[in-house]
Amino acid sequence: MNSPKIGIIMGSKSDLPVMQDAADVLKELGVPYEITVVSAHRTPDRMFAYAKEAHGRGIKVIIAGAGGAAHLPGMVASLTHLPVIGVPVKSSNSIDGWDSILSILQMPNGIPVATVALNAAKNAGILAAQIIGTTDANVTQNLIAFKQELARKVEESAKEMEG
Amino acid sequence: MNSPKIGIIMGSKSDLPVMQDAADVLKELGVPYEITVVSAHRTPDRMFAYAKEAHGRGIKVIIAGAGGAAHLPGMVASLTHLPVIGVPVKSSNSIDGWDSILSILQMPNGIPVATVALNAAKNAGILAAQIIGTTDANVTQNLIAFKQELARKVEESAKEMEG
Amino acid sequence: MNSPKIGIIMGSKSDLPVMQDAADVLKELGVPYEITVVSAHRTPDRMFAYAKEAHGRGIKVIIAGAGGAAHLPGMVASLTHLPVIGVPVKSSNSIDGWDSILSILQMPNGIPVATVALNAAKNAGILAAQIIGTTDANVTQNLIAFKQELARKVEESAKEMEG
Amino acid sequence: MNSPKIGIIMGSKSDLPVMQDAADVLKELGVPYEITVVSAHRTPDRMFAYAKEAHGRGIKVIIAGAGGAAHLPGMVASLTHLPVIGVPVKSSNSIDGWDSILSILQMPNGIPVATVALNAAKNAGILAAQIIGTTDANVTQNLIAFKQELARKVEESAKEMEG
Amino acid sequence: MNSPKIGIIMGSKSDLPVMQDAADVLKELGVPYEITVVSAHRTPDRMFAYAKEAHGRGIKVIIAGAGGAAHLPGMVASLTHLPVIGVPVKSSNSIDGWDSILSILQMPNGIPVATVALNAAKNAGILAAQIIGTTDANVTQNLIAFKQELARKVEESAKEMEG
Amino acid sequence: MNSPKIGIIMGSKSDLPVMQDAADVLKELGVPYEITVVSAHRTPDRMFAYAKEAHGRGIKVIIAGAGGAAHLPGMVASLTHLPVIGVPVKSSNSIDGWDSILSILQMPNGIPVATVALNAAKNAGILAAQIIGTTDANVTQNLIAFKQELARKVEESAKEMEG
Amino acid sequence: MNSPKIGIIMGSKSDLPVMQDAADVLKELGVPYEITVVSAHRTPDRMFAYAKEAHGRGIKVIIAGAGGAAHLPGMVASLTHLPVIGVPVKSSNSIDGWDSILSILQMPNGIPVATVALNAAKNAGILAAQIIGTTDANVTQNLIAFKQELARKVEESAKEMEG
Amino acid sequence: MNSPKIGIIMGSKSDLPVMQDAADVLKELGVPYEITVVSAHRTPDRMFAYAKEAHGRGIKVIIAGAGGAAHLPGMVASLTHLPVIGVPVKSSNSIDGWDSILSILQMPNGIPVATVALNAAKNAGILAAQIIGTTDANVTQNLIAFKQELARKVEESAKEMEG
Repeated sequence: MNSPKIGIIMGSKSDLPVMQDAADVLKELGVPYEITVVSAHRTPDRMFAYAKEAHGRGIKVIIAGAGGAAHLPGMVASLTHLPVIGVPVKSSNSIDGWDSILSILQMPNGIPVATVALNAAKNAGILAAQIIGTTDANVTQNLIAFKQELARKVEESAKEMEG
Repeated sequence: MNSPKIGIIMGSKSDLPVMQDAADVLKELGVPYEITVVSAHRTPDRMFAYAKEAHGRGIKVIIAGAGGAAHLPGMVASLTHLPVIGVPVKSSNSIDGWDSILSILQMPNGIPVATVALNAAKNAGILAAQIIGTTDANVTQNLIAFKQELARKVEESAKEMEG
Repeated sequence: MNSPKIGIIMGSKSDLPVMQDAADVLKELGVPYEITVVSAHRTPDRMFAYAKEAHGRGIKVIIAGAGGAAHLPGMVASLTHLPVIGVPVKSSNSIDGWDSILSILQMPNGIPVATVALNAAKNAGILAAQIIGTTDANVTQNLIAFKQELARKVEESAKEMEG
Repeated sequence: MNSPKIGIIMGSKSDLPVMQDAADVLKELGVPYEITVVSAHRTPDRMFAYAKEAHGRGIKVIIAGAGGAAHLPGMVASLTHLPVIGVPVKSSNSIDGWDSILSILQMPNGIPVATVALNAAKNAGILAAQIIGTTDANVTQNLIAFKQELARKVEESAKEMEG
Repeated sequence: MNSPKIGIIMGSKSDLPVMQDAADVLKELGVPYEITVVSAHRTPDRMFAYAKEAHGRGIKVIIAGAGGAAHLPGMVASLTHLPVIGVPVKSSNSIDGWDSILSILQMPNGIPVATVALNAAKNAGILAAQIIGTTDANVTQNLIAFKQELARKVEESAKEMEG
Repeated sequence: MNSPKIGIIMGSKSDLPVMQDAADVLKELGVPYEITVVSAHRTPDRMFAYAKEAHGRGIKVIIAGAGGAAHLPGMVASLTHLPVIGVPVKSSNSIDGWDSILSILQMPNGIPVATVALNAAKNAGILAAQIIGTTDANVTQNLIAFKQELARKVEESAKEMEG
Repeated sequence: MNSPKIGIIMGSKSDLPVMQDAADVLKELGVPYEITVVSAHRTPDRMFAYAKEAHGRGIKVIIAGAGGAAHLPGMVASLTHLPVIGVPVKSSNSIDGWDSILSILQMPNGIPVATVALNAAKNAGILAAQIIGTTDANVTQNLIAFKQELARKVEESAKEMEG
Repeated sequence: MNSPKIGIIMGSKSDLPVMQDAADVLKELGVPYEITVVSAHRTPDRMFAYAKEAHGRGIKVIIAGAGGAAHLPGMVASLTHLPVIGVPVKSSNSIDGWDSILSILQMPNGIPVATVALNAAKNAGILAAQIIGTTDANVTQNLIAFKQELARKVEESAKEMEG
């Protein structure tokens, strides 16, 4: 496999069932990635190192998922100039997801996090591919085909329902 | 000026005081942009045309701001494979911003919108620059300098407060 | 069956268990309808065509159901002068229904959507029948009988409970 | 003036600054209306009489606005088979409008209220006109012109902003 | 049994599993009651009659439970000068109970409803007994004993836990 | 003046502009009252004494108003068998009133607090009068006249608006 | 065992499955504790005695857990100068935990409660140990080891996921 | 002045009007402190250094205030074994304070933050003093006097109101 362009990280291995969707759609769209656990609160040094070194290793976009008081995406964004995509995870310690969403989304001016919907790791993967696609024609082609397939399936459902 | 890489659109000209921040920071970071009004609800045809033609005109990233039942970012995302950044605007018809945030953020899987904080058009501009920066070394340099300046100002405040 | 007066559409076939209630009550009230899938985000062109052509095909009222960042009702309303009834669906990607409700309800002035309660597709059907009933005496009779039956059942429960 | 087709009622005269918008847009769209105060909580008998007699007087649609624990729209809907449009008013005793919205929107199955956005009496008026327009070609023409004018103004703003 | 002093009503027989607690605690506290179904939205005439006639039949306090857009307690309060206790029910059509709570609690000045916690029909019964107890020494004695028993059970738990 | 039947207490003298409405309406309805400051958090001993001694001094109903983490109404209710009416105050340290409402309303089973709307001290006063009115014909007459006056004013507004 | 330094109390024995975590982590960190049930609402006298006597018995920190309108932590804080840690419990009568959180967190100035996350009794225990650790080198060593173990486990997960 | 025992930090100098209250009350209670600006997002390296070195410099408790996606308190807690008190600040970029509260309060198990009410820096200062007071008799005496003064002022207000 080519060297990874997208770094997928999550605050806890319990986030993997959600975050795996990001990996799967990146594979489908032909964008190489790496995936690991980095906890802002339990391994702050590891987080510092990961965020500061990602660019040097060729990573173009970081996808970070976390739940509850989710500081991982914002802290990573504070430590790198790469675009960071945040996935609010409705983890067991989250209040219906509101804490995860607000602590990822409401970043102060100067340090953006590109936030996607609650648990929407798949969309994080697609967004990362769209960023790669801004200068990669192959990925662009894959994204166009992906959208066409979404439409095709709806039209199929429609025919079925219309009987 | 070079041909625009970022398209900034907003649902109403009353959103301009918020959205101007995106334009200003893109200028500061050296990324050419265009800016206009496109209403999802009042000019749906214009929105369709804008979203479908943006890529062909060389636009790499679209920033869309809207308030209330804010459909502009999500609908534009449905019509293009470009990355779309959504800015929830706390407009006069918004309920403390919650409607703007949720109708931009909670996109279904397949069609991501990179959502930033309420009224955070400045962060939308920085995020767009970060996307351009993934393959543009000049913009990357500007982003690094921008971050250093943020830190410098905090350290200045700190010295002042510590007396 | 007579040509349909009500068009029932939904963003995904997974919304059918909720939206079927609209169809069932319209049948009970004697109002012909059609039903299909139209996704704002996955099939925007199909949505444009559906909304623009509905009036020409004799549709008088459109019922649109969607969940999460639910743009279908509002976008259809932007594309037709027919009354549009929106059904917020508590879909699997919805945050307790708040996103669905706010992104349907909080339309800007100029483009109303007649919003009903969360998952209340039955009420959407009744409301559509009430609109038809403003000029159709048969449907009015059916609505009056329907209301009487609601009252009769409560009175029956009351007798049972009073023992 | 022709005999009124739309009855506009509100829970308190303090709601008039909001509810006047419904009257104004109905006038603009050529639909005759009547307007008065009917309080569910302070004049329940008056409310009963109004709701039960509206149909007999030729009213086709009732627009009811109220704030706080807003029972007027739902109670009127329980007393008539006419379509009822509810306007949640952010009155002085309302908690950011949430109470007004939920007590109008969340009607049980059987008794719909067509709810519009917070304070969106203008949209209530347009929706009432759309209902009349389902069988009145003049009103339909007015609605089409109204929508065209909305689009024209956006395009004007766009030109201005694009400079 | 003596003639009932407390009238317990509920919007739907599906509220009985919650509302039965009011009846049970009233029995325990020695306060006679009646219980039935009265729907504000499906049987508005029945509600009017019930609320207007309760006082004449010797009812001193009305307990009204309802869910969703819960108009029963407030409408009954508008139709009688008796104290009305409202029980917000987390019914199947309620959004986590918020709609039930706000549409019962947020009554306008002039027409109070004594609101208890979500699903807290037991507390509604105790509150009704406290009202009777303001002039009935037997009920007061029962309330004092009831409170002592609450304390005794906690002290028992405490001993158990302290081992 | 007769000896007070209603005790009005509040957590801070800054609550007086809200709580004065309870006193004023009780005066209007002919129910004698007393009014003072009792802080659950700053004067817990005073609160204990007040709550335990109120009944012995002839108080029939306690009205307690507080803001933020409002423990006064619930703690007083835990210390007396008298009915306690809670007024959630939107004080300066309250989050839009939600904290005040929830910490008064959501009492556990066994210890009810009759909660009224945010800042609705007037309704607390009326409710206290209704409780006295269950066995006092003079107060009942005053309540009936009070309700008639409410209706009369609405009808006056209606005539004015209908022109 | 040494005499307890931490007093763990809870409003109901049904809170024990949550609150046991505080006890367990204190044991792990070598801090002696006591644990019992104290209900603010059902045993107010017991609460007064507990809070006033804790300091005299050598207790340094009180951990108090409660759900719904959770007054225990704040009332205990009003009765002692010891630091009080509040644990909002998502009990069966709580609305998604919001009531528990707000009635513990939003204490007025003068009477702090150190609030931890919903159901986070483990964190309450750790925080109590940190307070003891400010002057106890053994506990400090245990806390440092505890943090290292947290990091070690994340790194283990990371290795596993990276494969 | 003695060497500081409490470190007060805030994310931005714009938080000073809120955070100054912590300093003022610590002075009143006789606890030496230091105060400065440390931004988690704009100066992550400074934050790392501050949090890791605080213990070595004799700091016993850290008070950290921040608004919006407030990561400072939690990140500092992840980097030290000292107790950390978090002050949610309702800053200009905060949504009514909810984001600040949830991103400070909802820390995962293992890393507590002692959260106080929105903007309640005064309570953060008192809590810090209570922690020092667990082993410092002078501070304990000051806290007891402070509480007595709170009570005295309420009793003064009470006398005034009772007239």
